[in-house]
Amino acid sequence: MKLLRVGPAGAERPVVLGEDGTAYDLSGRTRDLDGAFLAGLDPAALARDAAAGVLPVLDLDGLRVGAPVPRPGKVVGIGLNYRDHAAEAGAAIPAEPVIFLKPGSTVVGPYDEVLVPRGGEKTDYEAELAVVIGRTARYLDSHAEAAEVIAGYTIANDVTERAFQFERGGQWDKGKSAETFTPLGPWLVTPDEVADPQALTLRLWVNGERRQHGSTAEMIFPVLELVRYASRFMVLEPGDVVITGTPAGVTLGRPGTPYLAPGDVVEIEVDGLGRQRQVLGKA
Amino acid sequence: MKLLRVGPAGAERPVVLGEDGTAYDLSGRTRDLDGAFLAGLDPAALARDAAAGVLPVLDLDGLRVGAPVPRPGKVVGIGLNYRDHAAEAGAAIPAEPVIFLKPGSTVVGPYDEVLVPRGGEKTDYEAELAVVIGRTARYLDSHAEAAEVIAGYTIANDVTERAFQFERGGQWDKGKSAETFTPLGPWLVTPDEVADPQALTLRLWVNGERRQHGSTAEMIFPVLELVRYASRFMVLEPGDVVITGTPAGVTLGRPGTPYLAPGDVVEIEVDGLGRQRQVLGKA
Repeated sequence: MKLLRVGPAGAERPVVLGEDGTAYDLSGRTRDLDGAFLAGLDPAALARDAAAGVLPVLDLDGLRVGAPVPRPGKVVGIGLNYRDHAAEAGAAIPAEPVIFLKPGSTVVGPYDEVLVPRGGEKTDYEAELAVVIGRTARYLDSHAEAAEVIAGYTIANDVTERAFQFERGGQWDKGKSAETFTPLGPWLVTPDEVADPQALTLRLWVNGERRQHGSTAEMIFPVLELVRYASRFMVLEPGDVVITGTPAGVTLGRPGTPYLAPGDVVEIEVDGLGRQRQVLGKA
Repeated sequence: MKLLRVGPAGAERPVVLGEDGTAYDLSGRTRDLDGAFLAGLDPAALARDAAAGVLPVLDLDGLRVGAPVPRPGKVVGIGLNYRDHAAEAGAAIPAEPVIFLKPGSTVVGPYDEVLVPRGGEKTDYEAELAVVIGRTARYLDSHAEAAEVIAGYTIANDVTERAFQFERGGQWDKGKSAETFTPLGPWLVTPDEVADPQALTLRLWVNGERRQHGSTAEMIFPVLELVRYASRFMVLEPGDVVITGTPAGVTLGRPGTPYLAPGDVVEIEVDGLGRQRQVLGKA
């Protein structure tokens, strides 16, 4: 099952896609794809309703696609979770997951403009598999428990200003928090449609040139371990998002390659999760 | 003007205190002390209404006090902002503000229980002046502009698990994000009642023993600079909270002193902003 949100930023309406790609308006069922909706989500029942024709059909033509969840309470970032990316970043393979945070205010839709921040010199992309939390998770013990709190998967671009991240003192968060820095979407794909989250290919292009091409099979810590682990340091709540790290190929790891500039086009594709496309602008 | 929220966690009602300490119920004016309310807040007009007797009196006896703002979109932490604390932490004086993030899900009321996390070994306190944002702040240029986006001040305990912060790999956020780790309150005190935010004494006691005693005069970067600076790395929104760093005296800086344990009592006082008191429990 694929869920999405369409309409102007801040006034998106919830939509479910049927098997054949027909879009159905969920506004009569829920105000939004928020934590409360995700906590009670029964994908099979919703699929039956879509198939039975009891939901109004919606024409998506010309409608903006928003992030597939409204403003998250938190976006939990995982650093250096692919061996090849740790190597290109000149970092050691972490002994346990590296956690950072992005404010929910960084989240935009999958086709929205991404803004190079004022003073930014090294704005970089990071193609990532994103996990949306569907139930409150606190001190999970096992991967089986972690699987139960996952509402679904989507794509994230963990946009990062490297000069702010590494050259302005302190913690990574400074380079991860600018407006528009977390394009999410296009869809929330429920776990029944993701046969194996550790066998997804991620690809990223800049101006048509492929820069990243990796597989979630190469993660150091798999998705279920990341969710279990994070839940022991903070309470994960419905609607929260965990972004699971990026494979090699970011600009940071390609000396001589220019960082992102206004007018550049970033595209990301993940098996079964669709495609994002952002044009860069300037704050 | 002092604003607060009273009632069960998640169902607090908004309250304003009159000059003489009488509490007035603001439920008829706003559902909560949320970003929208703060953005439109006119302290002088509200004070006139309280004095004119047009607001219902509320008896606070026996009511829990919540954080003075509902779940913030983000809590922006500032590290090492007092020279004596940087020295006790063995860190250099930062050349520019050190920023980290705490999830809004860490926020509790000023008298709520604080939980030592499971696996926690070094749970520490940090008395701080907290700033509540009242208007959207994006790329502020001056301290005058920063002053205009501040809705008020309150007290924060930036509770931190040092073993998670420093010994588990990666970024500080891992030790800053546990449930109950940001007691806030008791009041939101509007700027007209804080003659000089750089002349406030902060005191913290553990089980009656004074551990911290500093002044905001000793900040490396003053409040207005922190708000101006942070706004250049992220958009600050109404209801967001900036916690401005802690003076010397944390357990980290007192070798041989035990870290916080269940049953311990932490009290914090800041001039004009009231007093917090938390009893430690166990997650």
